[in-house]
Amino acid sequence: MNTNVDTSSAITRYMTEVGQRARAAARSVGRAETRSKDTALHAIADALEAAEASLRAANQLDMGAGRSAGLEPALLDRLELTPKGIRAMAQGLREVAAQADPVGEITDLKYRPSGIQVGRMRVPLGVIGIIYESRPNVTADAAALCLKAGNAAILRGGSEALNSNRAIAACIQQGLAAAGLPADAVQVIDTADRAAVGELIRMAEYVDVIVPRGGKGLIERISREARVPVIKHLDGVCHVYIDDRANLEKAIAVAFNAKTQRYGTCNTMETLLVAEGIAERVLPVLCRMYQEAGVELRGCARTRDLIPDVNVATEDDWYVEYLAPILAIRVVEDMNAAIDHIALYGSAHTDTIMTEDYSRARRFLREVDSSSVMVNASTRFADGGEYGLGAEIGISTDKLHARGPVGIEGLTTLKFVVLGDGHLRC
Amino acid sequence: MNTNVDTSSAITRYMTEVGQRARAAARSVGRAETRSKDTALHAIADALEAAEASLRAANQLDMGAGRSAGLEPALLDRLELTPKGIRAMAQGLREVAAQADPVGEITDLKYRPSGIQVGRMRVPLGVIGIIYESRPNVTADAAALCLKAGNAAILRGGSEALNSNRAIAACIQQGLAAAGLPADAVQVIDTADRAAVGELIRMAEYVDVIVPRGGKGLIERISREARVPVIKHLDGVCHVYIDDRANLEKAIAVAFNAKTQRYGTCNTMETLLVAEGIAERVLPVLCRMYQEAGVELRGCARTRDLIPDVNVATEDDWYVEYLAPILAIRVVEDMNAAIDHIALYGSAHTDTIMTEDYSRARRFLREVDSSSVMVNASTRFADGGEYGLGAEIGISTDKLHARGPVGIEGLTTLKFVVLGDGHLRC
Repeated sequence: MNTNVDTSSAITRYMTEVGQRARAAARSVGRAETRSKDTALHAIADALEAAEASLRAANQLDMGAGRSAGLEPALLDRLELTPKGIRAMAQGLREVAAQADPVGEITDLKYRPSGIQVGRMRVPLGVIGIIYESRPNVTADAAALCLKAGNAAILRGGSEALNSNRAIAACIQQGLAAAGLPADAVQVIDTADRAAVGELIRMAEYVDVIVPRGGKGLIERISREARVPVIKHLDGVCHVYIDDRANLEKAIAVAFNAKTQRYGTCNTMETLLVAEGIAERVLPVLCRMYQEAGVELRGCARTRDLIPDVNVATEDDWYVEYLAPILAIRVVEDMNAAIDHIALYGSAHTDTIMTEDYSRARRFLREVDSSSVMVNASTRFADGGEYGLGAEIGISTDKLHARGPVGIEGLTTLKFVVLGDGHLRC
Repeated sequence: MNTNVDTSSAITRYMTEVGQRARAAARSVGRAETRSKDTALHAIADALEAAEASLRAANQLDMGAGRSAGLEPALLDRLELTPKGIRAMAQGLREVAAQADPVGEITDLKYRPSGIQVGRMRVPLGVIGIIYESRPNVTADAAALCLKAGNAAILRGGSEALNSNRAIAACIQQGLAAAGLPADAVQVIDTADRAAVGELIRMAEYVDVIVPRGGKGLIERISREARVPVIKHLDGVCHVYIDDRANLEKAIAVAFNAKTQRYGTCNTMETLLVAEGIAERVLPVLCRMYQEAGVELRGCARTRDLIPDVNVATEDDWYVEYLAPILAIRVVEDMNAAIDHIALYGSAHTDTIMTEDYSRARRFLREVDSSSVMVNASTRFADGGEYGLGAEIGISTDKLHARGPVGIEGLTTLKFVVLGDGHLRC
């Protein structure tokens, strides 16, 4: 860059151009036929598979730089593009192509007393900005979801994945060109300058929504500073409540699955609530299973009365998303106490009741204010794929617009359509 | 207030308490039965009618203060509570009671390959903050919509209407008590201090959404400063495009109705676009009708070639929401030029095409990115009542969550519900 140029205003100029090009492209993508979008998705998938060697070479540059910079092994692991990972990316694109096109669907078209017909048409949001960290596969996944939903995408990956993202971007461009869609339909921000993010989240005239994907710190900072609406995921402090009318065998199996099937996911149970009436019959068995699986247990006083070798849970433990083999356990009086605990300490992500009692199941479903509320099923089911949404752009812990797993539909909105025959308002 | 008390921290404390009480009340209102909510709505309506004398006395205090303060006649007009206005408020409450209860409705409950059933339940948003200006009837209308949708409401009316709002609040409290609902389900902010608004729009832990109602200045300021999501209405720069395949008689009637049926409403047409092929046949007739109705016309050069006594429209005119008997007129080449004009200058509120051409109608509906897109109907139909939504809390020009007229449903959200029988994630 020319040393006479002010870097900060250069970034502003660059991002403004990106925004203007995205806004212009959004109009073409929004009216593109389903066939064009699907052609592009298949062509991108083919290009990714054909470019395996160059993708891996680009990725090795990032991996080398990451190792030199002392990136943690977990981060390096997420950064790596393996041949298997590349095939999975391509497969993901083909799956998005196979999903139904939501754009243009008209629902509830009804005649009104005035004689007009009123309905709602599903339409793209417009321009979507995705901000993410090390995983380069997000570049392809996010591009695919935005494109299928008829949006233009501005993708801003981690600086540690810049070479990998550039290589993936080249494949995306090939696919767009093959389908006759505008190159600006998917733009990958090609600068490691962090100021680009600051610009992106404030360009309300060019960007309709921001979806940040990454650690809580990143998401909180973006939400605080954004002038553009944000669809975000914060904590997943998920609960399983075992009611005293639960089928204990099923309850134990679900509580074990919800914690141990995977530790690092947002829909993993972090706190187990057990009704006092069955605590003696449930906890000894279940705690032994957890301990054998290597899960650290932290319990309330009543839990520790039953299982003395459980560590002490402090007030803070009820708020924590461990994302690790640690579980907080609390014995509660009844379902009301469980609902109160979830309302106070939970993060409104995913909560399950284990019960065979019809009235309690019905009440729990209605009264627990979380994005997913379950009866007799593992919290681990809270996932776009399991729910039949297809690929997901993320899980929203917001209440407005999109709540819970967000698939293609979450990247669209509804407008009203009115059909008349010269109708006048009286 | 004690002079030793720091006013700013006192307001913070007051608003924090309001927020905490609203959050607690939201849980009761959220699970209240339909019957309780409707009982409350009818009881509030009865209380308002019974309190006519005291409502008018309180309102006269505000009117007197407003006159002394030199409020404009239009503002005084909005501030006044007439006997007819009080009956209309009561009637509005009874109409909200008559609407279907959206809370708890489960849709799309389907079995998934894993064996779980997944559906979506409509649930309240939680706590809704409404910030509005002089009209005291909003106090009753907004309370009713929030309550029916199962939300707690925090209402902040204009300081010029403080006495009127207090008197209406007393009726609301009577109605809540009669139905056994918590008093904090509807709280009316009882201070004229503007700092209360600043607190309200930043209490993200207690308030789920803010709906500002008032002038553009108020709404822009709130949107800029809010930390809570805002459902807002900005401009209504609405268009009617008369295509060269329009039925001219219908087109002229609709274009006249869209401008002149009411001037001050957001869905009133502000710019008329006419295809060049029929401009000569349409504009002379239509302009004469507008001029006879006292509408000032501002036209492009081609309009003025046809009708010389039309004023000059400048570039700025295409952006303006006049809310007055003024109309901008532009002759355009064809529908594509009309769509481009609307995309560039419009406010994405409501736009109509007048045409008998099937393919053009289909394209206009899909490609115009506005909250309401119409064929052969007056823009004045963009209204919750006309659309069958019942009463409306406002019209949203946002794209996320709620777009266009916002009724009770816009004050709710969807959560996922999952029913299983001990299902585990593999």
